[in-house]
Amino acid sequence: MKSKGFILALVAIAGIVVLGAMYMSFQKNNRVQAETAKLPPIGEKEIDSSVWGKHYPRTYDSFLKGKETGVRTKYGGSDKYSKAEQQPEMKTLFAGYGFSEEYNEERSHFYALEDNSKITPARRKAGAVCLYCKSPAIPGLLEKYGDDFGKFTYEEMYKQVKFAIGCSDCHDPKDMSLRITRPALVEALQRIDKDWKLASRQEMRSLVCAQCHVEYYFNKEKKVTFPWDKGWTADQMEEYYGNYQNSIHVDWTQPQSGTNLLKAQHPDYEFSQGGVHAAAGVACADCHMPYERIGNVKVTSHWWVSPTRTINKSCTQCHREGEEWLLNRIHYYQDRNFEALRRAGTLNVEAINEIEKSSKTAGVNPKILEEARALHRSSQWRWDYMSAENSMGFHNTQEGMKNLSKSIDLAHQAIAAARRARGAE
Amino acid sequence: MKSKGFILALVAIAGIVVLGAMYMSFQKNNRVQAETAKLPPIGEKEIDSSVWGKHYPRTYDSFLKGKETGVRTKYGGSDKYSKAEQQPEMKTLFAGYGFSEEYNEERSHFYALEDNSKITPARRKAGAVCLYCKSPAIPGLLEKYGDDFGKFTYEEMYKQVKFAIGCSDCHDPKDMSLRITRPALVEALQRIDKDWKLASRQEMRSLVCAQCHVEYYFNKEKKVTFPWDKGWTADQMEEYYGNYQNSIHVDWTQPQSGTNLLKAQHPDYEFSQGGVHAAAGVACADCHMPYERIGNVKVTSHWWVSPTRTINKSCTQCHREGEEWLLNRIHYYQDRNFEALRRAGTLNVEAINEIEKSSKTAGVNPKILEEARALHRSSQWRWDYMSAENSMGFHNTQEGMKNLSKSIDLAHQAIAAARRARGAE
Repeated sequence: MKSKGFILALVAIAGIVVLGAMYMSFQKNNRVQAETAKLPPIGEKEIDSSVWGKHYPRTYDSFLKGKETGVRTKYGGSDKYSKAEQQPEMKTLFAGYGFSEEYNEERSHFYALEDNSKITPARRKAGAVCLYCKSPAIPGLLEKYGDDFGKFTYEEMYKQVKFAIGCSDCHDPKDMSLRITRPALVEALQRIDKDWKLASRQEMRSLVCAQCHVEYYFNKEKKVTFPWDKGWTADQMEEYYGNYQNSIHVDWTQPQSGTNLLKAQHPDYEFSQGGVHAAAGVACADCHMPYERIGNVKVTSHWWVSPTRTINKSCTQCHREGEEWLLNRIHYYQDRNFEALRRAGTLNVEAINEIEKSSKTAGVNPKILEEARALHRSSQWRWDYMSAENSMGFHNTQEGMKNLSKSIDLAHQAIAAARRARGAE
Repeated sequence: MKSKGFILALVAIAGIVVLGAMYMSFQKNNRVQAETAKLPPIGEKEIDSSVWGKHYPRTYDSFLKGKETGVRTKYGGSDKYSKAEQQPEMKTLFAGYGFSEEYNEERSHFYALEDNSKITPARRKAGAVCLYCKSPAIPGLLEKYGDDFGKFTYEEMYKQVKFAIGCSDCHDPKDMSLRITRPALVEALQRIDKDWKLASRQEMRSLVCAQCHVEYYFNKEKKVTFPWDKGWTADQMEEYYGNYQNSIHVDWTQPQSGTNLLKAQHPDYEFSQGGVHAAAGVACADCHMPYERIGNVKVTSHWWVSPTRTINKSCTQCHREGEEWLLNRIHYYQDRNFEALRRAGTLNVEAINEIEKSSKTAGVNPKILEEARALHRSSQWRWDYMSAENSMGFHNTQEGMKNLSKSIDLAHQAIAAARRARGAE
């Protein structure tokens, strides 16, 4: 009987503790609600995320986790290390272009403006357009200056810019609904007969990312333009840019080879679209912004990192095999992608060297040499598409390996053509 | 009130129909059990599947579905079409070897012995060992002749063989438990410190297939041998065979190039092991032998076909996206694999032509020419590993694309070396 009384007492104490914790959490929640209720509404033009943060303190807390630096994942992370140290071939592949002077693994959105402003000036020669994705001040400035925006130098525009990527870039302050604030995406969608205003919420959970995590170029009017008219694959974008002789755009000329090259930006949205996750209706936010439980509230994480750091929140909603198993599988794909990426990169260096050698050879056949350059551009484009996308192939494993195997094939063809051009066959 | 009576009558009729159906099914089940109970037990040495079939009529019915011919899936099927018609490069790649004379898409297990006996004699020069996997009579004959088995000609041994692949190849007649009947697998496992008798049932649901769906060669004593000592990937098996100059085995010499080549057999078990399905613990039988409901009984299908023909039974146990979506995804992987496979194959033909040209050139550098042949062997081995495995890359998509991108790379290197050998650089 004594032990029965003891158990009853224990149960009572446990009940009090649980109820107490629930009450405190409820009170805290009420307190947060009461505090935010007193605030004036967020202004229509408000771009300071800390003001938004007062209304959504938990979401803002997760956003502030982006301050973290110095953490590396196997193929990414928040550490600002030099990519060329990891892949020395980049020095040659990007010779003559800003990326050969400085090309670091990016830190978080939190540092987008700061890192952009401190990078070697060789990387922002295009001027004001380089700021297009770095700050929530941009949509207002685009409105203010219209077509003249692109005529400003980087430094001129930078003076008018405050705050790195933030709330207003993707949310409407009225009701927090998702919105597109960058005209380049609106226009690219229009050209393929799509209207973001008709997109579902799930589609918007990727499209807000596609404002910036895409392949783009600055057209002749220095307007940010997405090469989406023919499709989203490396093959289709190359078709958009046109063949070597009649390309509608050249990013730069690699000085040793004399090849007019395309620089791929991070085609994350495009590359991921054919992958199994996108095909299953998974949005960027499903993995990169998983729901978190904070106290008794569910919050969408605004700490944008590799899901390899949040597997339990990002992956296990669908995949039940456990964290270690999942990480092993991710690396199984990424390791093979990285191996092929390195091979494609080093073969492109070989192509550059062979073309350079031929171009310095007396009596070289100029037509065949140009063929070699065209093949080199095609190869390096596919390598760069895969080098610049941020998932080390994971977002669409099979298409990724297809791109890299084509890059390897084309680099060898460029090498062979360069040799043939100087009569070495 | 009238309509209420009508509904009651309807319910009563429906009840009677359902109960009647259940009773009939139950009776049929009882009848089957009663019939099989009267049969004498299956003999320890019984290799006639029709005798086993009397005890397990439903399973045997599914086994007999293997009689089907003439059905094509996108990359396989039960139609005996010529592979070289689909991929003309095979004629050159297999020149000098039986596969160039006849190489058809296989029909089912049901026709294994018949098709084997009717194939061009060039494909069974190795003699009796060619029958190793074709009939349940083989384990008895191996026991009878021991090491002398391999000394018989094909025709001599064929006379003693009856029945194509059947029940006794994988099952113990005592209790239907899974068993290994082919010593080559037992020995290969022993050499990597594994004992099939300690395998779980789920492992056995793949290992019985691994008796035959593997890479193997006939060693100097004409014994079937699996090159598994270094591992199961194309890279590791190549390491097992040894480098070009000191290879422990050569399948044949391609006459135009003079390259000593390895022929890959169907490395289905090995290739699948690194893939996502195997990593998740899925056995061959889970997809290729799904459970079927026949009346009120669950039967393991013994109709071995591509799961693309049984998606609802094979895939939807785990994947809920619907048949069309699943088939699209399978083809998304296979199409890219096929594209890379064709490219690797045609590049190997180019390598053969260049090596042939150099070998006929006066003053060719014999050392560099041998380097070219070694590169050609490495490339064609990887192409063939992927050409011979039966899933068009699906069983391990990333490793498959890795193999093919390496094959493409190595073929180009072989071409370049062959040109260099004749001073064309």
